[in-house]
Amino acid sequence: MPDQTHLYHDASGKTVVETRFRVRYHETDAMGIVHHAAYITWFEEGRSSLTRAVGCPYSQVAAEGIDFAVVDVAARYLKPAHYDDEVIVVTRLEELRSRSMTFSYEVRLAGGQLLVTGSTRHVSVDRSGRVASIPETIRARLQGGRNV
Amino acid sequence: MPDQTHLYHDASGKTVVETRFRVRYHETDAMGIVHHAAYITWFEEGRSSLTRAVGCPYSQVAAEGIDFAVVDVAARYLKPAHYDDEVIVVTRLEELRSRSMTFSYEVRLAGGQLLVTGSTRHVSVDRSGRVASIPETIRARLQGGRNV
Amino acid sequence: MPDQTHLYHDASGKTVVETRFRVRYHETDAMGIVHHAAYITWFEEGRSSLTRAVGCPYSQVAAEGIDFAVVDVAARYLKPAHYDDEVIVVTRLEELRSRSMTFSYEVRLAGGQLLVTGSTRHVSVDRSGRVASIPETIRARLQGGRNV
Amino acid sequence: MPDQTHLYHDASGKTVVETRFRVRYHETDAMGIVHHAAYITWFEEGRSSLTRAVGCPYSQVAAEGIDFAVVDVAARYLKPAHYDDEVIVVTRLEELRSRSMTFSYEVRLAGGQLLVTGSTRHVSVDRSGRVASIPETIRARLQGGRNV
Repeated sequence: MPDQTHLYHDASGKTVVETRFRVRYHETDAMGIVHHAAYITWFEEGRSSLTRAVGCPYSQVAAEGIDFAVVDVAARYLKPAHYDDEVIVVTRLEELRSRSMTFSYEVRLAGGQLLVTGSTRHVSVDRSGRVASIPETIRARLQGGRNV
Repeated sequence: MPDQTHLYHDASGKTVVETRFRVRYHETDAMGIVHHAAYITWFEEGRSSLTRAVGCPYSQVAAEGIDFAVVDVAARYLKPAHYDDEVIVVTRLEELRSRSMTFSYEVRLAGGQLLVTGSTRHVSVDRSGRVASIPETIRARLQGGRNV
Repeated sequence: MPDQTHLYHDASGKTVVETRFRVRYHETDAMGIVHHAAYITWFEEGRSSLTRAVGCPYSQVAAEGIDFAVVDVAARYLKPAHYDDEVIVVTRLEELRSRSMTFSYEVRLAGGQLLVTGSTRHVSVDRSGRVASIPETIRARLQGGRNV
Repeated sequence: MPDQTHLYHDASGKTVVETRFRVRYHETDAMGIVHHAAYITWFEEGRSSLTRAVGCPYSQVAAEGIDFAVVDVAARYLKPAHYDDEVIVVTRLEELRSRSMTFSYEVRLAGGQLLVTGSTRHVSVDRSGRVASIPETIRARLQGGRNV
């Protein structure tokens, strides 16, 4: 598959992934723009890309017996995206703690214009739903081997 | 909770449920109408109402160790629904076989105008995903005790 | 239609609406719980109920030539909802300014347990997308005639 | 952008586009598989890719003053897709008439396994919602210049 994902570390060493895709028609609403809840699913797709890009796909996280439950979501809407726009979600691992992590997001048009910013916070939970430490193998990959 | 569901049997003895709700904004698209995939989720909500109304809520079906996998969906779109419209989904159990069943649907405006028709076919599967007989207790309730 | 909506004013005079509905199957995800983006659409449904309950349905807002664009969304996830749960969205008009407003939300199980809290901020825009004053007739209704 | 779309004409001269993407988490449901309504949105994404690939993006169709309203949808579900699967939607323009057209779809895993088949039928409507002829420039591009 051609790669739609660009992985790098920013100046402060944080893991960043850019994911590029087109707006789907069903993501629009009667205002003629992308519905505000759709961006929340794009943030999720950005996280998926990041974890996949660093070698921690969901299948591996699940194999470790943990999940990353969403505990907080925030989004600020600056400009709307439209059907067929090519957008880029810039996902950054802002903070990685022993049992939680925070991502930030920027949704941009392919041309660069910033549309939406946001963040999500997650806690690591085991199969019974209890808060659990993030396994060391996963931590190391998320950080790109930089701060372990 | 006030009851939004009306259960009856039609002239041929088939179980029918009418479910009434309003169109949600996120179900619309940039044409200003309800997106065509949203009606497929309304069909599902109609089925949920029917199984609940006859005393077979999902929790009981799951407790019997089976699921009703969707194998066919069809829909015909006559007129569009719009945001804030009050709609009625008329769900009819058209056929109940030993290991499968078929529902038909009519989506109407509260005033009566027919918007969309459709059907879905389902097979009963056990937890390993194999086709399995529909348990007799569930069959009896779905039929309303008429043809057992 | 049986009324699923309960409108009142709280001790501080704020307009509040409680909206009650069941979780739809398509709102769940592979964790077996309601997907976190679905709550954002429930917040929207809560706002729709509130504006409808106070006599400002969307059709009237549109007839005034304005829309309420979403500029901020936040949600905190405490406990998950599941398919078929009956939930209540408590929507409160927290602040009404000349050109913007803020709603807060609580999503509860019908039995009372708090699942999710959140807020949204909106600005009034005209058809060309420019920020515009909220028409006085709409303001008065949103406030329930209390603080006009 | 790396190209995720492959356009060709089959042995009978029909226009075909293959579109490749990954399953998003929010497209799954509590059965742990992709929700059946999500495939309907994938069909739409397949159509979008086809019209874009032949040089008829939505913006051009809109500029001609027409829309392609969905009048029929059908889907058959053979095997489920799961989160993170890479899938291919094969979209084929089966029939192009003066005022309507029919597409067929195959959803496959990247490895080839067939998951879902389907079809949609559309009529060309003008801005007032009346059935209208498909403009010749659009017809020619959809057919790839073969049967004009």
